[in-house]
Amino acid sequence: MAEQFYVVPESTHNALVEAAYRNRGFDQAEAEAAARFAAYATRHGIRTHNALKALHLDHLFGSGSQGCVPAAEIVRKPTRFPAVEIWDAQRKLGQAVAYDAIDTAIDLAEKYGVGTVSVDNAFHYLWGGGYVMEAARRGYIAYTNCTAALAEVVPFMGKFPTLGTNPHSWGFPTTDAIGFPIVIDWATSVVAMGRVQQLAREGKSLPPNAAVDESGNPTTDPAKAKYLLPFGAHKGYGLSLINEIVAGFIGGSLPTLRSRWANDGEKHAPCFYFQVTHPDALNAGAFVEGRDQAGNVKAVLEDILGHGNENCLLPGQMEAEFAARSERSGGLLFTEKEILAFNEVAEECGVEGWNLDQFKAAND
Amino acid sequence: MAEQFYVVPESTHNALVEAAYRNRGFDQAEAEAAARFAAYATRHGIRTHNALKALHLDHLFGSGSQGCVPAAEIVRKPTRFPAVEIWDAQRKLGQAVAYDAIDTAIDLAEKYGVGTVSVDNAFHYLWGGGYVMEAARRGYIAYTNCTAALAEVVPFMGKFPTLGTNPHSWGFPTTDAIGFPIVIDWATSVVAMGRVQQLAREGKSLPPNAAVDESGNPTTDPAKAKYLLPFGAHKGYGLSLINEIVAGFIGGSLPTLRSRWANDGEKHAPCFYFQVTHPDALNAGAFVEGRDQAGNVKAVLEDILGHGNENCLLPGQMEAEFAARSERSGGLLFTEKEILAFNEVAEECGVEGWNLDQFKAAND
Repeated sequence: MAEQFYVVPESTHNALVEAAYRNRGFDQAEAEAAARFAAYATRHGIRTHNALKALHLDHLFGSGSQGCVPAAEIVRKPTRFPAVEIWDAQRKLGQAVAYDAIDTAIDLAEKYGVGTVSVDNAFHYLWGGGYVMEAARRGYIAYTNCTAALAEVVPFMGKFPTLGTNPHSWGFPTTDAIGFPIVIDWATSVVAMGRVQQLAREGKSLPPNAAVDESGNPTTDPAKAKYLLPFGAHKGYGLSLINEIVAGFIGGSLPTLRSRWANDGEKHAPCFYFQVTHPDALNAGAFVEGRDQAGNVKAVLEDILGHGNENCLLPGQMEAEFAARSERSGGLLFTEKEILAFNEVAEECGVEGWNLDQFKAAND
Repeated sequence: MAEQFYVVPESTHNALVEAAYRNRGFDQAEAEAAARFAAYATRHGIRTHNALKALHLDHLFGSGSQGCVPAAEIVRKPTRFPAVEIWDAQRKLGQAVAYDAIDTAIDLAEKYGVGTVSVDNAFHYLWGGGYVMEAARRGYIAYTNCTAALAEVVPFMGKFPTLGTNPHSWGFPTTDAIGFPIVIDWATSVVAMGRVQQLAREGKSLPPNAAVDESGNPTTDPAKAKYLLPFGAHKGYGLSLINEIVAGFIGGSLPTLRSRWANDGEKHAPCFYFQVTHPDALNAGAFVEGRDQAGNVKAVLEDILGHGNENCLLPGQMEAEFAARSERSGGLLFTEKEILAFNEVAEECGVEGWNLDQFKAAND
């Protein structure tokens, strides 16, 4: 049975989310960035990173812990290189920093063809795919990675979790070619720890080679699963290492200490890395059969999804379809359970809550 | 039983490889690039891309077919962006183009912090890991991808091969930290087609989800395996798409036509993409506990490989160990079978062949 959604106007959603962030000490610009990003995630069906999850994460690791510092100022570090910026985010809200970093990397790419922004002392930006999707929608090739909050993943051939779920996100400006930006975005573990817990609650099994028990032996029993494994054996392990090495070059510290606050001289915050490339910076200007760049990319993608592969999906397609559904419904789609949870948020910050009656049921 | 290797002095190897490439019409600089690269691959134990394999590939898809044009000149395309170059390689030898592109990207990174070189009308560069390893050894963060010669890989949820094995290669300047550059380098298929054929000869099974039969059904029987699958389901599929999309932006054409020459108005050559970043372009300059950048990366890697993970390998470690072994032996290590195969190469170009007697046996 399809889930019943209710349509929450974006302005209603954003007002409550802003109030919640203001109530936790964030400034107005930060609260707006948090609300904008939560709306963007919800609109694209990314329920694992909606406002409820973002506020919960902020409580666990952010302003409720020592991970995030409301109203912190980003410090631009000196660099001799014109096409890059290097920031100390001073643990400012991740969403505000990431939006700023993507805008900055776009400006650099406009001037130099390619630009990067490296961020030390960051706080969780939630869903890297959202930032590169937005950049791709604006016409740019974008990439980001970050070091995840906790070391939950065991290296290939190892026993103990010393790596984060360390996601990678790539966005490509393919809207002119196929109607939406291709966004390749995933963690380097087979599954997230939240998925393990969900499968345990549902009494279901894990896929093979997704997790290990306390002794480091692979298990498909989510109740016994203690640590995660990288996807694709040594290949996913390598991809996870990239985030740790990049963070190590930026200034990040030991993965096993991340988000575990102590006065031990080590750093405990994640790092971000952003990179934007102008599509003209790749364009050799010699497309065949009268195609332009977008037409050429369209022809390539049609070839890949032709020849009997018509049922394949492109990465970002499901998100684009959910966004179209949100658009048709005229607002953000939440379940009854989620709407009730927003009332707890309203209670936390002393503003009026929501009634299910005030929202129309989505018929799509 | 360990394989018996013989020690071929690099000068002996390079003289024969250069003669072979000169004999096929390549100019001296191209022949030297081919020999240098073959020696580099052999020294690091990459036997799948030694001179014998390179010459075989050139015969199948390169100067022996229509894929590679000896003595072709690279055309620099105009671009308004200072941190990038865009080339039409005119199907020049891939190794010569890739060395030139990495040098150029390093020059750009020295000026701008990051630099990219995009290459249209390329010919196979063999082993992307070799170029980024060399850049990393020289102190830079490097990345390359290319579109593979043939569409052998079925998209996730698809039936027909429309993607190449599309490799990615990342190199990191970690020699100061751990003694060798970390090089993450692999194809986006679970295995290569050569591996399928090898397992078929040996009567062994394929790993699960590595290949499909003619009807698109997964099989572990290498005799029935017809097409390859991406590693890690939708994740490896996404990584393979990246190469095709980047190539589509550069000017590459339909993957299913690649290396299949016809006068159909389409392009048939692969594309290359290179990117180099200066490590100082990431450096936020605030490492804790008195570490410098290399010391910080070392501390991060020690944390990852600590806590019971001491038996894990880092990507690039086996290649570094093989290079040390080559160094101790005083030359390049080849088996008897390989040395005999070099005699066929010598015969092809009318120079004196090798005798097994002229080489000392490696005792390491």
